[in-house]
Amino acid sequence: MALIVQKFGGSSVGDADKIKHVAKRVIETQKAGNQVVVVVSAMGDTTDELLDLANSVAEDPYKSPRELDMLLTSGERISMSLLAIAINALGAKSQSFTGSQAGIVTDSVHGNARIAEVTPERIRESVDAGNIAIVAGFQGFNRETKDITTLGRGGSDTTAVALAAGLDADLCEIYSDVDGVYTSDPRVIKGAKKLDAIDVESMLELAAAGAKILHIRAVEFARRHNVDLRVRSTFSTDPGTIVYSGKAGAGMEESVVSGVAIDKGQTKVMVIGIPDVPGKAAELFQLVADAGANIDMIVQNTPTGSDVTDRVSDIGFTCPKSETKKVAAALESAKASLGFRTVEIDEEIGKLSVVGAGMRTHSGVSATMFRALAEAGINIEMISTSEIRISVITSDDQVDAAARAVHTAFGLDSDVEAVVYAGTGR
Amino acid sequence: MALIVQKFGGSSVGDADKIKHVAKRVIETQKAGNQVVVVVSAMGDTTDELLDLANSVAEDPYKSPRELDMLLTSGERISMSLLAIAINALGAKSQSFTGSQAGIVTDSVHGNARIAEVTPERIRESVDAGNIAIVAGFQGFNRETKDITTLGRGGSDTTAVALAAGLDADLCEIYSDVDGVYTSDPRVIKGAKKLDAIDVESMLELAAAGAKILHIRAVEFARRHNVDLRVRSTFSTDPGTIVYSGKAGAGMEESVVSGVAIDKGQTKVMVIGIPDVPGKAAELFQLVADAGANIDMIVQNTPTGSDVTDRVSDIGFTCPKSETKKVAAALESAKASLGFRTVEIDEEIGKLSVVGAGMRTHSGVSATMFRALAEAGINIEMISTSEIRISVITSDDQVDAAARAVHTAFGLDSDVEAVVYAGTGR
Repeated sequence: MALIVQKFGGSSVGDADKIKHVAKRVIETQKAGNQVVVVVSAMGDTTDELLDLANSVAEDPYKSPRELDMLLTSGERISMSLLAIAINALGAKSQSFTGSQAGIVTDSVHGNARIAEVTPERIRESVDAGNIAIVAGFQGFNRETKDITTLGRGGSDTTAVALAAGLDADLCEIYSDVDGVYTSDPRVIKGAKKLDAIDVESMLELAAAGAKILHIRAVEFARRHNVDLRVRSTFSTDPGTIVYSGKAGAGMEESVVSGVAIDKGQTKVMVIGIPDVPGKAAELFQLVADAGANIDMIVQNTPTGSDVTDRVSDIGFTCPKSETKKVAAALESAKASLGFRTVEIDEEIGKLSVVGAGMRTHSGVSATMFRALAEAGINIEMISTSEIRISVITSDDQVDAAARAVHTAFGLDSDVEAVVYAGTGR
Repeated sequence: MALIVQKFGGSSVGDADKIKHVAKRVIETQKAGNQVVVVVSAMGDTTDELLDLANSVAEDPYKSPRELDMLLTSGERISMSLLAIAINALGAKSQSFTGSQAGIVTDSVHGNARIAEVTPERIRESVDAGNIAIVAGFQGFNRETKDITTLGRGGSDTTAVALAAGLDADLCEIYSDVDGVYTSDPRVIKGAKKLDAIDVESMLELAAAGAKILHIRAVEFARRHNVDLRVRSTFSTDPGTIVYSGKAGAGMEESVVSGVAIDKGQTKVMVIGIPDVPGKAAELFQLVADAGANIDMIVQNTPTGSDVTDRVSDIGFTCPKSETKKVAAALESAKASLGFRTVEIDEEIGKLSVVGAGMRTHSGVSATMFRALAEAGINIEMISTSEIRISVITSDDQVDAAARAVHTAFGLDSDVEAVVYAGTGR
């Protein structure tokens, strides 16, 4: 008998009818001869409504992180118990469990806790007794203080993958309103096609490059623990996309290019005329890290100058738009000590990434990409590469056209119309 | 330093402004030099809304009692964390705790669990560290199964009293939208006056007789564990009413009559012509108990009949109106075995009770009462008495007039206009 973990996001359990629909699906999976563990997010906008309540009793509720976590976890408590009630009403057996009851042990960082350990004995007992076990996503507990914690963005996906790892499940299915992983964003590229399978490392790069279908933390967890994922839609029977790292990928050939991702949420920061002496880059990025910003691409161009002692270079990097202000302030405050000339900030950029595990062994990928971009008349402002990814920065009004050109150049276009992407829940 | 437990009902924490108001009150109590533990109910109609949700995913959610308890406890989880956030925002220190974190250990009866033990170590540590500890009312956990339970009607009052007992608190304050215990329902009797104090046994009889200000389970708990209660309003500074069983009552003189209670929620059931042989009454009431009905008053009149072997009697009792149907069905099904002639059911009755611990030592109370009723032209259908209570059943259209007559006869009328009663939360 296989053990399957199924995760349903907030839009999948958004109202009573949807919960009843999920109950039926889950029972079908059990009737097909599987043990089933279900991870749920809070219903629809519940989390935002709880945050609104918190904001209405305090100017800054984030100053009470322990209490805010206690508040937010009630969202999953509602959806999980309703789903269990719905399953029981349909004649199957179900029990619901909070994160702490399910053994999701975390560190002590309220609002963004990391899973330290999973001790899912109660879940194992429950499914062995014939129950469909429902588990609250997004939450855990700190074993030392016995306090409730939340996992932050992407938390429910991570709960599902962690439980699948802890239970040595055969498969972890991530359900949402999207029917799989696409070669690109179907809202931008009409010919984007659904992938039947993608290796976990390419999925990780796609997630990092801006694809919102799976949260990067969950994919990283799946990679580390060899958990096979299946991304599929709650509202169709389409088999979706397998994201393989474990058994499912054995013997599969890796695609040269799996997908083309677009990210318009980044800012480009250029630090101009910084002295080209050892340690300056380290000093610069330490400063940015201390400001709490997450840096993505980094590019340094060739130093210029008449001799070694007065050579300067420009260092560019990208960071999320939401962090532009604090990065700019940190740089300004350190202008004297870093010794750079000026900072140029450009928020009107787009990032285009081409991802594929097959790049490792296939040459000519970058040549194909840059030829396609040149023919489409796209101006490239920055380039950065990893072993299985090539990313370029263009102006934000050119990035969609750039993506279409590259998507076609790699032969990814499909005739079938895609199901439109939407953001996943947490 | 005194330790005070304060309980705020659902109407006291019904919205963000009310929660902020409660936060201020609680902080004032701490600033006055007390340790403070606060028990809260769910906000306003939250519990009913959660029940509506459960009813929308299942025909009979009560078939999933474990899950229903999990669902309903999220209501207090929301109110308690919001109150803690509000208190922290005002500069005091606060932590919130679920029933299980607070050590409320119950039996396994989901939906109507009894508190078996209170182990409030975390609450003690929290208040000793200078926090105002907020505890979710209405809930606990079953130590054997680790499942969450709810305490049923009156649960939050009971949580507060049990915590006060477990913490050996100096006082337990029950806040609602009513400013104390009145001699009668001010909606019926304009002259009803607020009592400064009442002994716990009279309070127990008043609660049993239909006064809704305090739940009978909580009062019973207070009596058994000698916890002094103060009933007061969230929205005024009135000191309210002390319900004494412990230290507060030492040396107080007991009133002859503390209050006059009216209950229109009962049905009168008369079982006519039941054989007057030993064991028949036991058989009858076992039958009613097995049907799950709660019997209140019982009256049996003198048997009639020509000789001992064919003597029959009539047995009357009252039960809640909501249970009339099942009682009638149970009696009908056992008509042959019990051997009675017929059943008469009257839903148009009212119960009037006069309660006072001083009745024990003062004679003439019943004489005064029946004289007042006779002068007001009230027809009495049933009478039952305890050591400190006299109850009569009248027709429902006469019970208000009966209450006014008796209230006046015992000199309870006041010139001050009362704050109108309302039902308390759970």
